[in-house]
Amino acid sequence: MRLSKKERQKKLTLALEAEPFLTDEEMARRYGVSIQTIRLDRMELGIPELRGRIKYMAEKNFDHVRSLYPEEVVGQVTELKLDHSGISLLEIREEHVFARNRIARGHHLFAQANSLAVAVVDAEVVLTATASIRFIRPVRLGERCVAKAYVTKETHHRTQVDVQTTVEEEIVFQGVFDVYRSKEDS
Amino acid sequence: MRLSKKERQKKLTLALEAEPFLTDEEMARRYGVSIQTIRLDRMELGIPELRGRIKYMAEKNFDHVRSLYPEEVVGQVTELKLDHSGISLLEIREEHVFARNRIARGHHLFAQANSLAVAVVDAEVVLTATASIRFIRPVRLGERCVAKAYVTKETHHRTQVDVQTTVEEEIVFQGVFDVYRSKEDS
Repeated sequence: MRLSKKERQKKLTLALEAEPFLTDEEMARRYGVSIQTIRLDRMELGIPELRGRIKYMAEKNFDHVRSLYPEEVVGQVTELKLDHSGISLLEIREEHVFARNRIARGHHLFAQANSLAVAVVDAEVVLTATASIRFIRPVRLGERCVAKAYVTKETHHRTQVDVQTTVEEEIVFQGVFDVYRSKEDS
Repeated sequence: MRLSKKERQKKLTLALEAEPFLTDEEMARRYGVSIQTIRLDRMELGIPELRGRIKYMAEKNFDHVRSLYPEEVVGQVTELKLDHSGISLLEIREEHVFARNRIARGHHLFAQANSLAVAVVDAEVVLTATASIRFIRPVRLGERCVAKAYVTKETHHRTQVDVQTTVEEEIVFQGVFDVYRSKEDS
C-alpha cells in the first residue's frame, strides 16, 4: 500500500527528526519509492542531504572534546554536551566485519561506545574503569550505527555513562560505562 | 641486594615457567643484571629466546581456531584448547595508545580478550552476547599483555568464558564473556 505524497512527506519529516542520519536509500526502501523521489521530497521540504545534516548538527551541538583528541573518537561525533550527552555515527565498512559472515566485530561497536563515553566527560584525563555491555543483534556490513551516550551518575572521581547504539532505530548494542576522571579536572 | 648466579638462574627458571613471554630486557631489569647476563643464563639453562619459546608453545598447544580466521584474532594466540582455554599475547604499540598519555586504549584490550573468548569456542559461528569487563590498571606503550581465557560454563547454545589479562603477572584487565554458539555446531 503506497502512501500519498503528502503522507510520505509527513512521515519522512518525522523520521528525520527521530533519525537525522537516515540515508536517502533507507528512506526510499522504507516508503517503497525511488531514491529520486526522496530527493525531490527533501528539496520540497527544504531538508539538506545527509552530509549537510551531519555538518549542521556537528556545528550546532558541539562542545569540544577535552578527554581525548577528536580524531581518537571512534565514529563521527555529531553532538556533544560535556558531562551530559553525545551522539556518534559509525558506518560499518569492510575493515569492521568478519570475513566469513560480514558481521561487525564486537570490538568496533565497543570502541564506538567506549570512546563516546570518554569523550562526553569534561576532564583532561578519563579512563574506563568497568563496562557492562550487551550485543543485542548482529550488525552487518553497510549498516550505520548511531551511538547515544548519556551521563547518568556523577560522584567525586567517577562518571557513569549509559550508551545505546541503534541501526535505523533498532537497538543493537547497550553498555554502561563507569569511567574515572582525573582529580585536577573534576 | 644482588642475587648469586645460582639463585638468579633458579628464579629465572621459575619466572619463565610462570610467564613464558618475559623478555630478556624485563628479566635483566628484574634481577638488576645486564641483558647479556640473562642471555648467558638462558644458554646455560638451555632456554630458547622469546621468539623460539612462542613458536614452541604455539606448535605444542594449538588446536585450530574454528570460529574465526586465525588472523582475525587480536594478538598472537600461543595456546588453544578448544572449549577449554587459550592464551594470547598483545604487545602495546604506537597504534594502540592515546597520543596524549601513551596509555593503551581500552578497546584494544577488549578486542584481545573478546577475540580470544570467541576463538576458544569450538563452533563455526560464535558471537558475543554480553560482557562484563574491568580495566584494573592502565597499560602503557611497550607493555606485553598476556590474556588467558577459560571456559567456565556451557549450556545448550551459550558458553561463558572468563578472561584475565596480565602484564608481568600483574592483572590489568578482567572480563566475563557470554557467547552464543550456532545451533549446528553445538
